Amino acid sequence: MPEDKNNYNKKTPLSELGEFKLIDHITKNISIHNSSTIKGVGDDAAVIKYNNKSTLVSCDMLVENVHFDLIYCPLKHLGYKAAIVNFSDIYAMNGHPKQIVVGIALSNKFTVESVEEIYEGFIMACNKYGVDFVGGDTTTSPQGLIISVTVIGEAEEDKIVYRKGAKPYDLICVSGDLGAAYAGLLVLKREQQTFIANPNHQPDLNPYNYIVERQLKPEARKDTIEQLNKNKIIPTSMIDISDGLASELLHISKNSNVGFKIFEDKIPFDTQTLDTAEEFAITPLTFALNGGEDYELLFTADIKHHDLLKNMQNVHIIGHIVSDVNEKDLISNSGLAIDIKAQGWDSFN
Amino acid sequence: MPEDKNNYNKKTPLSELGEFKLIDHITKNISIHNSSTIKGVGDDAAVIKYNNKSTLVSCDMLVENVHFDLIYCPLKHLGYKAAIVNFSDIYAMNGHPKQIVVGIALSNKFTVESVEEIYEGFIMACNKYGVDFVGGDTTTSPQGLIISVTVIGEAEEDKIVYRKGAKPYDLICVSGDLGAAYAGLLVLKREQQTFIANPNHQPDLNPYNYIVERQLKPEARKDTIEQLNKNKIIPTSMIDISDGLASELLHISKNSNVGFKIFEDKIPFDTQTLDTAEEFAITPLTFALNGGEDYELLFTADIKHHDLLKNMQNVHIIGHIVSDVNEKDLISNSGLAIDIKAQGWDSFN
Repeated sequence: MPEDKNNYNKKTPLSELGEFKLIDHITKNISIHNSSTIKGVGDDAAVIKYNNKSTLVSCDMLVENVHFDLIYCPLKHLGYKAAIVNFSDIYAMNGHPKQIVVGIALSNKFTVESVEEIYEGFIMACNKYGVDFVGGDTTTSPQGLIISVTVIGEAEEDKIVYRKGAKPYDLICVSGDLGAAYAGLLVLKREQQTFIANPNHQPDLNPYNYIVERQLKPEARKDTIEQLNKNKIIPTSMIDISDGLASELLHISKNSNVGFKIFEDKIPFDTQTLDTAEEFAITPLTFALNGGEDYELLFTADIKHHDLLKNMQNVHIIGHIVSDVNEKDLISNSGLAIDIKAQGWDSFN
Repeated sequence: MPEDKNNYNKKTPLSELGEFKLIDHITKNISIHNSSTIKGVGDDAAVIKYNNKSTLVSCDMLVENVHFDLIYCPLKHLGYKAAIVNFSDIYAMNGHPKQIVVGIALSNKFTVESVEEIYEGFIMACNKYGVDFVGGDTTTSPQGLIISVTVIGEAEEDKIVYRKGAKPYDLICVSGDLGAAYAGLLVLKREQQTFIANPNHQPDLNPYNYIVERQLKPEARKDTIEQLNKNKIIPTSMIDISDGLASELLHISKNSNVGFKIFEDKIPFDTQTLDTAEEFAITPLTFALNGGEDYELLFTADIKHHDLLKNMQNVHIIGHIVSDVNEKDLISNSGLAIDIKAQGWDSFN
């Protein structure tokens, strides 16, 4: 919680305010960005109005010690990330997030100030992406912090992109770079272990600033959606990369009933990701395929858009769709075809 | 879990299926009821389409050992109740629930069969109320079960009822009867204590069947909304009674900037609630004012509707609105004016 020095020493127990005053308190900084938001926080339900647009709805839950560790994750970043993760789901449908509702359950170890910081993160993300915070539920938990976010977005019906439309010969593209969030997580976990062994240890995270930020404070790919729209490209299928490239490719393969061929040398990495992979003696490919939490977009598009896509900022063509649903190949730098299997995030294992 | 005998002995660990197979498995029984639901479970987001209607959104979180105790709450009922609680919020806006998204976090003590039972409850509620289950998130928790439900409803914009429209002389009405859910909870807690002391004890819950059902498997007041609509009555303000009558009256008072006068002898009780109150030596008024979880509707309406409201099934006029915001009176059977204070559910205390 280093951001808000003024708040740092205040420790108001939640019970001092009670639920209703807490809600009044934390929602007073919320501003409304969209004309579709008729009524936000403060009644039984928020009121949203759409004209001739389709509504998109998505929901994600983040659980302490499953999805995040408060030892290295500042609360403000956590609120920010919880919002971003959900915005990303709406962009992955070629839509725009417009409202969020947030459920938070937290134990007595949290104070009013800690709830404020989580909400600050939500509001910061909402302000940056032009999304309205319209309601939610705040309650206690016997242990730890649980955040549940539902996002509501809009899209023109004929422009919504599902996971199911990929066709043979379509190009397979990803935005940004991959594997960075997982590389950042490895560094944070190592620092945590070092800190446990020696609490006086001062970590130098400077050489890892990009990958650590990718883990703690990711962004959603609004810019890619805007670029595609500007170039009049409607992807044939799209998904956001939350569980690793392998898992997302398999989703598109299953839903579109097609196979794919991607190329190791086309997968985009940041230098810090490559350096960290070397440091940990893990191939960066593993970070990209199975790491997850990159919140980049994976999409397929008709080959006629090849030149536009090739020149698009932050977009990389990594392969193409094939008709045989059993062909799920990564062509390695040495020319070997490796069968892609999901080994991504599965919270039950 | 007595409902589903065939499932009773199966204990498949969650890790055996993994997240994606679990989702496939539990969502296969979901059917779609509304033409506004274009795409349900199975992509980054659900797709919903509205034409010239307003969208209502509400969110509630239920946490094990805070909001429910699995010792006396069957999982199927829990799913049912979690849905109902959210439908109730939409009816309280004079709208109709159309879709839900559900986030569930659960620890390793739960099996695939237990998740199935929770979902069965959701699907049962959705089928009964004509609501579509369109998506969600299922993940692990280090401890216990957390359910987060977001409901999306629709309403005609000029018929949406907020908490803020109550005017002096408006009638104050409630649906159904009050205090039963809390009476049911007291009985269940007593049985739990008896069971702990003597595990061979066979509880006879028959004399309490109504109030126990009100606690474990409540219903939402779709019928009241339909009756009001049929009689062309648009309430001036409305809220559902989740935290007790006192707390909800204070919400309407605060939001509408008016006071109120209600009468003890007008508050509707079921006989089982009255009998249980006597058994526990607590005045039934306490059950109604501070008990909560009744999920009845509290609304105000113009006095011109008096005769229609008086003859409406399951609707009771319990008082009227006054202009002085500081007058928050319950007139007792002995004629005393008692100042109403919220002592309802506050999960932080």
